[in-house]
Amino acid sequence: MEHLEGRQSILSALQARQRRFEVILLKHGSHEDKLADVLTLAAERNVPVRRVDGRELDDLAHGATHGGILAIVSSKPRLTADELIAILDTLQEAPLLLLLEGIEDARNLGFTLRSAEALGVHAVLIKKHLWDFDAIEIARPASGAYERLPLVQIEDVEPLQQLRRRGIRLLGCLAGVRSTIYQTNLRAASIIAIGGEKRGLSGAVREICDDFMTIPSRPGAASLSLSHAASIVMAEAMRQRLVLCVG
Amino acid sequence: MEHLEGRQSILSALQARQRRFEVILLKHGSHEDKLADVLTLAAERNVPVRRVDGRELDDLAHGATHGGILAIVSSKPRLTADELIAILDTLQEAPLLLLLEGIEDARNLGFTLRSAEALGVHAVLIKKHLWDFDAIEIARPASGAYERLPLVQIEDVEPLQQLRRRGIRLLGCLAGVRSTIYQTNLRAASIIAIGGEKRGLSGAVREICDDFMTIPSRPGAASLSLSHAASIVMAEAMRQRLVLCVG
Repeated sequence: MEHLEGRQSILSALQARQRRFEVILLKHGSHEDKLADVLTLAAERNVPVRRVDGRELDDLAHGATHGGILAIVSSKPRLTADELIAILDTLQEAPLLLLLEGIEDARNLGFTLRSAEALGVHAVLIKKHLWDFDAIEIARPASGAYERLPLVQIEDVEPLQQLRRRGIRLLGCLAGVRSTIYQTNLRAASIIAIGGEKRGLSGAVREICDDFMTIPSRPGAASLSLSHAASIVMAEAMRQRLVLCVG
Repeated sequence: MEHLEGRQSILSALQARQRRFEVILLKHGSHEDKLADVLTLAAERNVPVRRVDGRELDDLAHGATHGGILAIVSSKPRLTADELIAILDTLQEAPLLLLLEGIEDARNLGFTLRSAEALGVHAVLIKKHLWDFDAIEIARPASGAYERLPLVQIEDVEPLQQLRRRGIRLLGCLAGVRSTIYQTNLRAASIIAIGGEKRGLSGAVREICDDFMTIPSRPGAASLSLSHAASIVMAEAMRQRLVLCVG
């Protein structure tokens, strides 16, 4: 079991319906009117709510930002490639997926998930051995997106091959390649693959990429961080999909 | 006086020539061959280098990432509007400036500066009362950009008016306005104005904006973080300036 802290994470998780809720703990004397949406949803889903001492909550809580509410829940499920494909089959638009390799920081992962959701990504794929973060540290900057976005945990490239066999192109972001993200067709079914700042994309992923692309940037400047590079590519995918042109 | 920690910050500051160097402290037994570029530049600029005990360095250092080298320097200069205009007058291209209001986190500011430099911004303007961060916390994620980018500290909107009178348009990023960043001309001389996540742009800045623009995003998702929103708008400015079209 994990726990979620604070109104927003708990509300997002109740709405997303991906986790099983054991119990919600509410500090005695909390402003329950501000938590009405959480408590209504909890009642609808038959989640027990228990009032506890502030000290009991503080002992359980990871940080100081719980605001008097904490939930004990099953961990966020990670989809298999087959489950992901079942979701993609229901989409009305071409799938847009994000593959992250070598992400080293829970906070950066959280921000990346938040951008991914805002910019229309349908699911995020993450290499398993990098999946070793404190969920609360991911959830806080993700601002609900961690709960709502489908996440797929992969151990090798086979799930990527499975997606490629269904016509989804694997597009690797690399510095210095000739094609820019603006010259790459991101309207078609795509996996945007981005590697960590230290090593970039792994050889195993590079080997099966259908194409490579780069974000144009000023020569001599430091490279963009992973979460900012990812956000720029995802925004470009959304721009292309909106078929908007510069006025 | 401030101090800079680690090879990269010190090298960037020596190259940027914006700070006065008092002394560089080097831990006894450091791998001086890895610091050759720093030591060569320091010698060229007549900066004294003193070898010290590891403990003396640790006592002075803010964190544990100094890697055996620390510099005592004047603080990073903040330009006046007049000094900024003198720089802009030397440019071969239309100025692109970033105005940040309500940024609350040194690390996010650092990442924003890093993106700003990579995406071709010529200077960043920041409201003075928000300028109260630990310089080392900004410098680390900025990856050298904090040293190299011209920064202007503003107290009221007068410097913005001064820039507007020179034909630079003030473009406010706001959620929900009709024009998107893709429909806004960012090739012309522009200040991209972005507000913090809590309050957005101040009324005083909104009142003098020449135009507003929004980043299209998925309905129902959380809003983008300030540094990610800023990066997306700056990347769009660079795209328009490169006159690249979708292939």
